[in-house]
Amino acid sequence: MIDPHRYCVIMCGGIGSRFWPYSRSSRPKQFIDFLGTGRSLLQMSYDRVLPIVKPENIIILTNEQYATEIRAQLPDLSEEQILLEPARRNTAPCIAWAAYHIHAKDPQASIMVAPSDHLITRETIFEKAILEGFRFVENHHALLTLGIKPTRPETGYGYIQVGPKAEGEIHKVKTFTEKPRLELAEVFVESGEFFWNSGIFLWKASTVIEELHEHASDLASTFDNANGLFGTPDELEFIEKNYPGVMGISIDFALMEKSQNVFVECVNFGWSDLGTWGSLYDNSPKNRDGNVTQNCAVMAYNSTGNIFAVKGDKLMVVEGLKDYIVADADDVLLICPKAEEQRIKQMVNDVRLAHGEKYL
Amino acid sequence: MIDPHRYCVIMCGGIGSRFWPYSRSSRPKQFIDFLGTGRSLLQMSYDRVLPIVKPENIIILTNEQYATEIRAQLPDLSEEQILLEPARRNTAPCIAWAAYHIHAKDPQASIMVAPSDHLITRETIFEKAILEGFRFVENHHALLTLGIKPTRPETGYGYIQVGPKAEGEIHKVKTFTEKPRLELAEVFVESGEFFWNSGIFLWKASTVIEELHEHASDLASTFDNANGLFGTPDELEFIEKNYPGVMGISIDFALMEKSQNVFVECVNFGWSDLGTWGSLYDNSPKNRDGNVTQNCAVMAYNSTGNIFAVKGDKLMVVEGLKDYIVADADDVLLICPKAEEQRIKQMVNDVRLAHGEKYL
Repeated sequence: MIDPHRYCVIMCGGIGSRFWPYSRSSRPKQFIDFLGTGRSLLQMSYDRVLPIVKPENIIILTNEQYATEIRAQLPDLSEEQILLEPARRNTAPCIAWAAYHIHAKDPQASIMVAPSDHLITRETIFEKAILEGFRFVENHHALLTLGIKPTRPETGYGYIQVGPKAEGEIHKVKTFTEKPRLELAEVFVESGEFFWNSGIFLWKASTVIEELHEHASDLASTFDNANGLFGTPDELEFIEKNYPGVMGISIDFALMEKSQNVFVECVNFGWSDLGTWGSLYDNSPKNRDGNVTQNCAVMAYNSTGNIFAVKGDKLMVVEGLKDYIVADADDVLLICPKAEEQRIKQMVNDVRLAHGEKYL
Repeated sequence: MIDPHRYCVIMCGGIGSRFWPYSRSSRPKQFIDFLGTGRSLLQMSYDRVLPIVKPENIIILTNEQYATEIRAQLPDLSEEQILLEPARRNTAPCIAWAAYHIHAKDPQASIMVAPSDHLITRETIFEKAILEGFRFVENHHALLTLGIKPTRPETGYGYIQVGPKAEGEIHKVKTFTEKPRLELAEVFVESGEFFWNSGIFLWKASTVIEELHEHASDLASTFDNANGLFGTPDELEFIEKNYPGVMGISIDFALMEKSQNVFVECVNFGWSDLGTWGSLYDNSPKNRDGNVTQNCAVMAYNSTGNIFAVKGDKLMVVEGLKDYIVADADDVLLICPKAEEQRIKQMVNDVRLAHGEKYL
């Protein structure tokens, strides 16, 4: 039986600029069937928590501009389950809003916060881990984050160093470390003490609100002003008026790196943030010729190691291309070596300077 | 004053498979504004002869499937000026048809036959050359072809070896040679005796009909059966019924390489058959970065020597690509090194085998 006091908040406001132009502001990554399964990453994230929380306890947090897309992709959601931020203010404000919103409705609530655009495999392990996490935070004043056992010295992720054991796989957090250099990442992985920061959080609504008062008091006091409004027709008006004025800050920086009550559950399911073309390539099935194709037919000659991501049914005919990204969507075509993908950000900036928002 | 007995037949039935998918059977090369001038190659071919023949004496020879496109691109043409072949039978049958058609209307007619998809520069030299050619064929029983002074040992063209001088720049033809190997082409160019075969012909209608009787008697007797029908409403019915049954053969093979009355006018205007991506690259203006772009905006990083041909207004963002063809149109995207363009033909065949005519 699913505990009716358990909630899941799916963060769905990202703009997906790293996969431009295949994903772009009008159609970011979470809305794309990135792995060719017939379900978008958001839909997969939603499906994944259905065995864990009641469907009516799933809340989608997103930007206003994606409301239509959310309703289309998740038609079972009621309007009360979609929280639309009127402006982008990073993760702390929207997580705070969700906590206040849920707490007003259910003071006993415990919440899992999950990204909408990551890949998770071995879902039975995932499910067991989340249930263990819920039990822990329901019995402790704890902010719990999930740490993934690293499989390689990845320099693109944040790492969590574990401290003393609390119970089961759950430990006090010793340190958070942002993307390390390779030498450091190698030491991290070898030590066995460091885990990848997954961006999946669990806590009681009351716990996170209390911690916000302590470590992000401006944010907390803004939402305190709305007590009595959450769940009423006035909530939206309050948000429209006050949300754009709050400071944009990440939940990691606002809370996780400051609080003394932060724990990590060390887990070992398959995970990728799919944050780069490289990770998408690594996590996608390859054709016989070693290419990854998204949404297109490909005839590849002397071409391997490429990722072809095309919006709309298209035929790609490619000769003599190795280890490139080819991304085609609407009115933009990007061709870039996989090894140079970190340059795409600069290219997007150049496109903005030259053409404004037209192609973004 | 323009001589009212002079005609121009523009051959416009090509399917443009060499530029697939940028040009394709539904929109072959001659209909594309290949050089970004605002006029298609066909329109440029039409414009080029307006100073030489009366507009009502310009005949377009094409395949039935392009009738709509021709009318759209050349709205000044009357229906009588468009000859629609019901089947593709190479150049000899359609040139024969045009000769009979024009001769029935004007037994004194002289005709220039010109491709619709070549590039010609230095048009005043072109104009002078054509006028000299008309004068020659009007005064001699001659099949005249224009030979272009070669500027490099091109292996993709046919060559004409000149014989004894007739008058001015006009000589008897000694030999025709198809695409030579490079060593041979180098000898050709050095000798000064060889000229590129331009596919531009001049002759009196009566001369070419007489020569057809001698060297392509089957073809001539087919059209002889239609005497009395040309220019009447019955002409079309005759063509629909009989044209598909004639043997497909080129005018070079049927006539030029057989007749004793073949002459070449040696000319020196700028010319390219734009028959390959390489020639299109060579003949097109380059961006600052050494790329050629057709119909698109390009932001190129560490990329040079490429040709980007895109149907529809599109932004290309390219990093680390050198000497490639990128051709994007509708539902096909081709990426191929310029040096491998001779392989595109095989790719098109593979596409046909795998997908039928859908992408051709």
